[in-house]
Amino acid sequence: MILVKLGGSVITDKSKLRTFRKGSCERLARELLASRDDLLLVHGAGSFGHIEAKKYGLHKGFKNNSQLEHVAMVQRDVRELNLKVLEALIDEGVRAVSVPPAAAATFRNGSVVSFEPDVFGVVVGIGLVPVSFGDVVPDEVMGFSICSGDLVMEALAQSFKPKLVVFCTDVDGVYESDPKRDKNAELISRFDAKSLRTLRKTESKHADVTGSIYGKLERMLAISRDCEKCMIVNGNVPGRLGKALRGEAVVSTVVVPR
Amino acid sequence: MILVKLGGSVITDKSKLRTFRKGSCERLARELLASRDDLLLVHGAGSFGHIEAKKYGLHKGFKNNSQLEHVAMVQRDVRELNLKVLEALIDEGVRAVSVPPAAAATFRNGSVVSFEPDVFGVVVGIGLVPVSFGDVVPDEVMGFSICSGDLVMEALAQSFKPKLVVFCTDVDGVYESDPKRDKNAELISRFDAKSLRTLRKTESKHADVTGSIYGKLERMLAISRDCEKCMIVNGNVPGRLGKALRGEAVVSTVVVPR
Repeated sequence: MILVKLGGSVITDKSKLRTFRKGSCERLARELLASRDDLLLVHGAGSFGHIEAKKYGLHKGFKNNSQLEHVAMVQRDVRELNLKVLEALIDEGVRAVSVPPAAAATFRNGSVVSFEPDVFGVVVGIGLVPVSFGDVVPDEVMGFSICSGDLVMEALAQSFKPKLVVFCTDVDGVYESDPKRDKNAELISRFDAKSLRTLRKTESKHADVTGSIYGKLERMLAISRDCEKCMIVNGNVPGRLGKALRGEAVVSTVVVPR
Repeated sequence: MILVKLGGSVITDKSKLRTFRKGSCERLARELLASRDDLLLVHGAGSFGHIEAKKYGLHKGFKNNSQLEHVAMVQRDVRELNLKVLEALIDEGVRAVSVPPAAAATFRNGSVVSFEPDVFGVVVGIGLVPVSFGDVVPDEVMGFSICSGDLVMEALAQSFKPKLVVFCTDVDGVYESDPKRDKNAELISRFDAKSLRTLRKTESKHADVTGSIYGKLERMLAISRDCEKCMIVNGNVPGRLGKALRGEAVVSTVVVPR
């Protein structure tokens, strides 16, 4: 079993509302065909989710009725992205089937309180590829909350103990300083809990309602305990995902528990 | 609580592959605003599902690998329809949120074996309108199977015991003979188990992988036991759904257990 996240920053233009990067998604779909293993896919919401969700405070849960039409619109937008991803995958030969996070998980205070992996398991069992995604979800305490793609990744890793987990992002991996600001930033090839402590907390320049880079790295460290290998690769560089799936050496950060 | 099915024959052209009837769907959305009660919606798959599902025998479950790409394509098509329905509803002011059947139910041999209504309940509880639909679903025995919109209606009626259930179809109700063939066909205003026994089994002229009219009526009879009133109305006649929701007299068939 291999678990792959197609980052919202790779399949969408995160700075422009609802902008799908079709070509990138189709190329990644072709690279996924390199895998001979069962596949589980998750994609981020990118600019189909974060921008509006942040604007209307959807990550804070139900505060007033005026949010509700935006909950409806954002979940619609995210499903539009999911449909585009499904189409790109199916066109390239990946037999993709949509599985929204609320089909398997229930949520309380923005956290997963139960996760039934069977819906993913049955789909994989017959040779299809489940595709989950970051979404606005019903929340037993907050009314609704945001389930990030990374949260789905964590739940899937815990349930399926995949041999390989790959996060496709728009950077080569984790750097000692922000590579978007510092040209001499050094890539960390092996990232562990100690690296996290020494890394200065940085903030992404684009809207993100699912936590800082720091929070994402904590989640990846947790995931690295549930798989044989956990990697961050640059999904914008053609071939890197395919190489990672074939077990070839590739520019990346490998995340390890310690 | 009111439960409404937007039939596939009303929101799509059932004879033409993937043809959405946007105007009809938007009008029905406006009529839904007549309801002051909590709403649960289900829509059929119409020509986004039945035609291809029948062509590749998807209602028979997993037979061979060549079906899998069609499972992927049909679930994608059905989600395209769901997205169009969501858009029409949201544009008209219905705060619609997509809930695919597999988000609440698990399936064995084409039947629902478990149904967790919470995902619908939480959505309704904060003032949103869940929208489920006929879908290709994971099936623990058959690999995959077809969950009809009517099957979702039955599970929802059992769980929520709505005061009113309305099926919007392309006919005025149940006739003593097929109104599409017999101009003098008489509308049955009150349909019960005895009516079903006397009714001759008829077959729809369009592709339908979710059973005959006869099977649909059996399901409606079962649903009528879980609600105060169960009606079939013609969704193609402007105003009928709205009248039914306001409790006004309207041309229809009322389905009663006995």
